Amino acid sequence: MAYAYWKSGKVNDLAVFDLFFRTNPFQGEFTIFAGLEECLKFLENFNYSDSDIEYLRQALPGNIEPEFFAYLKDLTCKDVKVSAIEEGSVVFPRVPLLRVEGPLIIAQLLETTLLTLVNFASLMATNAARYRMVAGKSVSLLEFGLRRAQGPDGGLSASKYAYIGGFDGTSNVLAGKMFNIPVRGTHAHSFVTSFSTLEDINSVILRHAETQKPCDLLELATEWRNRVSAIIDISPEEASDGELAALISYALAFPSGFLALVDTYDVKRSGLLNFCAVALALNDCGYRAVGIRIDSGDLAYLSVLARDTFEQVGKAFNLPWFLKLTIVASNDINEETILSLNEQGHKIDCFGIGTHLVTCQRQPALGCVYKLVEINGQPRIKLSQDVGKVTIPGHKEAYRLFGADGHALIDLLQRSSEPAPVVGQKVLCRHPFQESKRAYVIPSKVEHLCKVYWKDGHVTTPPKPLSEVRERVQSSLKTLRQDIKRNLNPTPYKVAVSDDLYNFIHDLWLQNAPIGELS
Amino acid sequence: MAYAYWKSGKVNDLAVFDLFFRTNPFQGEFTIFAGLEECLKFLENFNYSDSDIEYLRQALPGNIEPEFFAYLKDLTCKDVKVSAIEEGSVVFPRVPLLRVEGPLIIAQLLETTLLTLVNFASLMATNAARYRMVAGKSVSLLEFGLRRAQGPDGGLSASKYAYIGGFDGTSNVLAGKMFNIPVRGTHAHSFVTSFSTLEDINSVILRHAETQKPCDLLELATEWRNRVSAIIDISPEEASDGELAALISYALAFPSGFLALVDTYDVKRSGLLNFCAVALALNDCGYRAVGIRIDSGDLAYLSVLARDTFEQVGKAFNLPWFLKLTIVASNDINEETILSLNEQGHKIDCFGIGTHLVTCQRQPALGCVYKLVEINGQPRIKLSQDVGKVTIPGHKEAYRLFGADGHALIDLLQRSSEPAPVVGQKVLCRHPFQESKRAYVIPSKVEHLCKVYWKDGHVTTPPKPLSEVRERVQSSLKTLRQDIKRNLNPTPYKVAVSDDLYNFIHDLWLQNAPIGELS
Repeated sequence: MAYAYWKSGKVNDLAVFDLFFRTNPFQGEFTIFAGLEECLKFLENFNYSDSDIEYLRQALPGNIEPEFFAYLKDLTCKDVKVSAIEEGSVVFPRVPLLRVEGPLIIAQLLETTLLTLVNFASLMATNAARYRMVAGKSVSLLEFGLRRAQGPDGGLSASKYAYIGGFDGTSNVLAGKMFNIPVRGTHAHSFVTSFSTLEDINSVILRHAETQKPCDLLELATEWRNRVSAIIDISPEEASDGELAALISYALAFPSGFLALVDTYDVKRSGLLNFCAVALALNDCGYRAVGIRIDSGDLAYLSVLARDTFEQVGKAFNLPWFLKLTIVASNDINEETILSLNEQGHKIDCFGIGTHLVTCQRQPALGCVYKLVEINGQPRIKLSQDVGKVTIPGHKEAYRLFGADGHALIDLLQRSSEPAPVVGQKVLCRHPFQESKRAYVIPSKVEHLCKVYWKDGHVTTPPKPLSEVRERVQSSLKTLRQDIKRNLNPTPYKVAVSDDLYNFIHDLWLQNAPIGELS
Repeated sequence: MAYAYWKSGKVNDLAVFDLFFRTNPFQGEFTIFAGLEECLKFLENFNYSDSDIEYLRQALPGNIEPEFFAYLKDLTCKDVKVSAIEEGSVVFPRVPLLRVEGPLIIAQLLETTLLTLVNFASLMATNAARYRMVAGKSVSLLEFGLRRAQGPDGGLSASKYAYIGGFDGTSNVLAGKMFNIPVRGTHAHSFVTSFSTLEDINSVILRHAETQKPCDLLELATEWRNRVSAIIDISPEEASDGELAALISYALAFPSGFLALVDTYDVKRSGLLNFCAVALALNDCGYRAVGIRIDSGDLAYLSVLARDTFEQVGKAFNLPWFLKLTIVASNDINEETILSLNEQGHKIDCFGIGTHLVTCQRQPALGCVYKLVEINGQPRIKLSQDVGKVTIPGHKEAYRLFGADGHALIDLLQRSSEPAPVVGQKVLCRHPFQESKRAYVIPSKVEHLCKVYWKDGHVTTPPKPLSEVRERVQSSLKTLRQDIKRNLNPTPYKVAVSDDLYNFIHDLWLQNAPIGELS
């Protein structure tokens, strides 16, 4: 296609492309825009290497003129201008997330990569933000998805954009290293099953956190297991010695970070008893255990059981902090599971979420498209039998109009030649395709949505650090009314066009659409 | 977890891990195993760089002993042995795809990456193979998914494993370069909308393929448009001149590869007429057009309309090849769309498939797990409230038993100490968990499923080139009975254990399961 443009003498044609989506994902009414930083890196590094050119030379038909390859060899993004919405912002259908202006060929060559970088990033950030909303603010969310991700890089992107969307940490260590995301994790079942008896413990001595006095953790834990067993009415013979050996060993390695998996054999009859025994032994050595992870079974029931157990034990031995031990749950959790757990009542402090989060199981792709809207100053429209697929032509600006209470009221697209909406002055907002749907809005605040991020071969607005993008997601979501964000039947947020743009679209539409004939 | 193993003195413990899945994806009854080559590359390159160690040092708690980092620094896969099923084979639940044997810590550290590399690769290859089955052998399948993939590498993996699973080409040029996959594509709507009038054509001269005589393609196409318009009863005034200009320009760039998108304005009233005009003009210059692509609307109806048009035109001008022009369809296609098109009757020769293929929309993750089954020669079992999640312990071998007609009858897992099943001798096959489900099988052929691929720090069986893996998929699928492969309610393929292994599992299970108490 680039060659056909080149061959058609379109090397100096100036194009404007809009990158946008048509429908919010997950049957929701909002999307988080993400991926901008990666897009800017791509623009900076865009070039065809010698081996790329060599490959293209043999892959393309024999008639391609050699000057085309010379043209590709020198191609960079220096003549391209890219405007974008701030990364981490709440965005809506039809509003351009990116506007790419520049020579037609290079702007066209950027299409697929820009779409790839924005589509999954925005989908993941939106998914994560939705999990954060249903889980509430007091619960920790950890991303545990690498093993099920769509390829290693799919996993890495998932960790990054889950964090941006509101997760607190990841089990992906490389993501921690690369993006400075807090790394969190526990041990797996195989750690537990690698121990069979108490003899499998290598060393038993832990020095007291303050006094440095050596403590025999095995002896202490065995004693505590007997004492706890009487309180919670579970026989120590029922509990697995292999599991106890594993937990003692884990505690010896991480005395101040003891968070143990308790469902390898049986949460009720083995895991909780062994955990409490080791946690109390650690307490004798001056360390406070962190908590437990449950990875199977009825999470509502088991978390309540665990909290009750901690209460019984904490009260019996007068250890108030024992009541607040962390309970992590991590078995095939999705938005619906969390909503259902909320309804049933649970005592979970932290969710570890993998597959459903990182693959966006409910909808694994966002449908961003990249459409030509202007060439050499002339507007372009893509028609379709399906009105929803008709593009909004021309060089446009997008504004978000806010009400007096600080909530976003509507996004308004205008032709770039029009003056921006003004605070306190009424502006006519029209549905882009339905003639009769119109409303006057008097904005209390007007936000110009697009900024120039790339011009003359350089990043002009440096992308914000991950932590700020993450904050932007939450602050941007706060500007949305609750009914737009709710899980069930959310209210659609409105995206409108100015009267001028409305007429512009429809005139162009009529000019380009062939007149049908019924027969 | 690695540190806890290390701290527990488990540096020289020898572990056996099985990598397997529990359920076939896409509500089907088979899976294609893929990703092995990438796993071998990972084993070859496994190491912790200085910066990795430095990161771990600051990310882990302060109490970690410095010797552990020295241990990590020297860690490689030289002591690990990996056996695997041949890449591209049909595989089934519970049969180990990979068996990893070696020092516990390193074998454990491989877990997440091996899972990532096998899970998505196998899911994609299976998805592609399913598309190939419903589409039939005579239809071409092209992967068009990069823009919707889960990250750039998700797209690259998708292209690779779609090809392995039976696709014929990809629009992902990097995948073409890296994996030598045929690259295929057409132009986008923006190519068409970048032209508005016939004046937008840069040059109009094409030299005749044989005589080299200059031909005016614009003049020819305009004349042909009038002649065709009379035949198919569409007025040339209805057809878009911008579209005609675009198609002429495309034909000038690719005279021997002219495949044009015809739905930018209207397939019936503009696209087909313009395409036929340019194709006939090309014919005057000694070139044969390839065909059209339709990217919206009713694909069954439009493909039949296009084929009818080609027949009318081909007959009118006595060009038999015109009847066989290629019709490519590419709008949001999935398995169900193809099945429905097959039912309705269509004239499509080639599907371009994107989102649903590359993100595996119907089920975006395969649930492979990696479980410890033996340590220091002692079997390990992971119990669960859910019988389906109980692991099959011990070092095992897997065999596929074939019937006299060449079809695979059953996969049989045995303890590695047992003699392999013998052709012509009956063998008792038992359901791993249901006591009463047993059957005698007399195999006509026995295939030992696992081979050693990695040992002593080297690849021992070099992975096959992509094209051979791709053939393996088709030949392996041929050994499955049709009812196992069908789309609706397929028959499950049986995976059994030997009598010896059955007893071994259940003895171990009873030893490890706590006895409950009803209250």
